[in-house]
Amino acid sequence: MGATIAKQDFPVSKARRYLEPGPVVLVSSRYEGESNIMTLGWHTILEFSPSLVGCMISAGNHSHRMIRESGECVINVPTTDLTDQVVGIGNVSGARVDKFAEFELTEEKARHVAAPLIGECHASFECRLYEDALVEANNFFIFEIVAAHVAPKPEYPTTLHYTGGGIFMVAGEMIDRSKLFSKDMLE
Amino acid sequence: MGATIAKQDFPVSKARRYLEPGPVVLVSSRYEGESNIMTLGWHTILEFSPSLVGCMISAGNHSHRMIRESGECVINVPTTDLTDQVVGIGNVSGARVDKFAEFELTEEKARHVAAPLIGECHASFECRLYEDALVEANNFFIFEIVAAHVAPKPEYPTTLHYTGGGIFMVAGEMIDRSKLFSKDMLE
Repeated sequence: MGATIAKQDFPVSKARRYLEPGPVVLVSSRYEGESNIMTLGWHTILEFSPSLVGCMISAGNHSHRMIRESGECVINVPTTDLTDQVVGIGNVSGARVDKFAEFELTEEKARHVAAPLIGECHASFECRLYEDALVEANNFFIFEIVAAHVAPKPEYPTTLHYTGGGIFMVAGEMIDRSKLFSKDMLE
Repeated sequence: MGATIAKQDFPVSKARRYLEPGPVVLVSSRYEGESNIMTLGWHTILEFSPSLVGCMISAGNHSHRMIRESGECVINVPTTDLTDQVVGIGNVSGARVDKFAEFELTEEKARHVAAPLIGECHASFECRLYEDALVEANNFFIFEIVAAHVAPKPEYPTTLHYTGGGIFMVAGEMIDRSKLFSKDMLE
């Protein structure tokens, strides 16, 4: 298991830098005195300001009700250091297991929500439920990111990207095409 | 510019293999005799069967109205061979430019929708609008993938993943953790 990673405050409007590339994330929640974690690959940025992210959280997940009832969660971005925990967390239900204990992960106190940050992750985004219109029919939650905590190094973390079948793509090289962008598209 | 890529039929319920890792996609549309393309990074898989994908398509995009009125689009997955086209398409409006002509891309006929496939892309997913409840308020479209066309090789394409600021992450190595998954999680 990895050590906890020191994070700094990060602008919530720039959360896309970590979430738009499409990494698998660990969503932590807290409800009625219980903490839980789920592995999630089905999410998308929806807006910069307010900083909105949409997540499809199946009703079959123990976390679904906890997040719905509490109206809060934390979206944590793990790197390859946590690959086996990511897989393990995705393959067991929080109804049966205390995942923080089982996977030796550290609960850290968030600033605005009761759900804990995961200390071993590269970045953590505190979220409040913003729009629940599609929760009932489509299990689609829209959250507002109300605080962002990011490790200053490395600049681009080696995130995991799930393809199904137990196979992950790992974040590779970075290429800079900023010179080809119009100024307003870089804001 | 690249050559067109021969694609084969692919199961629509397995589209997650190409979309869940979070690549930048090129969304093609057709309405009132005009074809258009937009660059999109804000999408997520929502369901296997029906095969659903959610896309945040800002109302400021010329494609927004074309897709809303036609109720159709094609989600195409480009690789690094098309990096400069991806950037160029994202930095100019289809209201001013014929993007297929400008970026020397090939319109190929889709099977179920009027919107064209982009011949130079690795994979193309024909989509019909499935749920528009969040279009008005959040510009969020839920599409059903009704046909999938994928190049058989390479098995895992070198997709582009946008981080903002003109900088892309390129898909890196693949790691296989299938032995750690429970059987029902591999379906």
